[in-house]
Amino acid sequence: MRPWRTLARRTLLSRPPWLEVGDERVALPDGREVDGFLWIRTRDFAAMVAITEGNDVILVRSYKHGPRTVSLAVPAGYIEPAEEPLAAAKRELREETGYASDEWASLGSYVVDGNYGVGTEHIFLARAARKVSEPASGDLEEMEVVIVPLAEISEYVRRGEVVQLSSVAALAIAEQTLRSRASGAG
Amino acid sequence: MRPWRTLARRTLLSRPPWLEVGDERVALPDGREVDGFLWIRTRDFAAMVAITEGNDVILVRSYKHGPRTVSLAVPAGYIEPAEEPLAAAKRELREETGYASDEWASLGSYVVDGNYGVGTEHIFLARAARKVSEPASGDLEEMEVVIVPLAEISEYVRRGEVVQLSSVAALAIAEQTLRSRASGAG
Repeated sequence: MRPWRTLARRTLLSRPPWLEVGDERVALPDGREVDGFLWIRTRDFAAMVAITEGNDVILVRSYKHGPRTVSLAVPAGYIEPAEEPLAAAKRELREETGYASDEWASLGSYVVDGNYGVGTEHIFLARAARKVSEPASGDLEEMEVVIVPLAEISEYVRRGEVVQLSSVAALAIAEQTLRSRASGAG
Repeated sequence: MRPWRTLARRTLLSRPPWLEVGDERVALPDGREVDGFLWIRTRDFAAMVAITEGNDVILVRSYKHGPRTVSLAVPAGYIEPAEEPLAAAKRELREETGYASDEWASLGSYVVDGNYGVGTEHIFLARAARKVSEPASGDLEEMEVVIVPLAEISEYVRRGEVVQLSSVAALAIAEQTLRSRASGAG
């Protein structure tokens, strides 16, 4: 199966460092050419499922202007230029929740939109998380740390309390990983 | 916890029916005002985890220009104007894979980006899926139907064969749901 080829590319809107939008003229493998195929670029971000020794998950509750509602989410934040995703994860967990961990694992990196790109979510699991300081996110949003037992997470999701795709994905993948480790399969 | 208020809103880029981008002047609950807060709007879409009576999952392999790679994904597609998400799911499953099902369940709707919105993914589970026709997606991409046993899905994800956030989220949430039903909890 063959990739498309980019024949020409231009930028239509630029709002550094937040957003760039443009389009491309692409050649499909069957010889067709398509004009105006859009691309969107926002900042890559890290999202963290942090779990204490007592199997509590550290979440945050805040208003988000994307879904335009108050909801629960995993801690997450944009990766700074030249910052490694794991370093961003550790920094953002500390800033947003005051928690730290010495047991980090990657749960994969996923492209947000199949057609336009948009950005990449880097998902991490942090075990044996412990509170080391007070939160100080510096974000625009008011934010409240919420502790939920791991066993109740999927019920919170089913009730619609987690509305962001990046958060439900991180929580579901983390639960899968923890279960496969617990059963000795991973 | 209080929402933001939109004081002014303008469109910066419009490419109907695919994309609209703009910004807003918003009032935060603490009285601050923020100018130029971006919003992005792409089309809402449905993604389907379709499983046969024999516990095989129906996936598609294609090149996607967002991640710029060939990968595995769940069948998915944009919702047409005035179309219900479930109707879009049934239509796209049939078009992309030739499969149909009489046992559909919603696994939730999730906003793609917490800050900018972008769009909403509606995730569905289709059980007892059966082949009823040949695929005929009409999409730009070459597409191949790939059948993977449910028990092997998480291994495919761990190997990096599923790169789109919308797909890994759908697969992980579906597996959670199937397991909780099997254990009698849901």
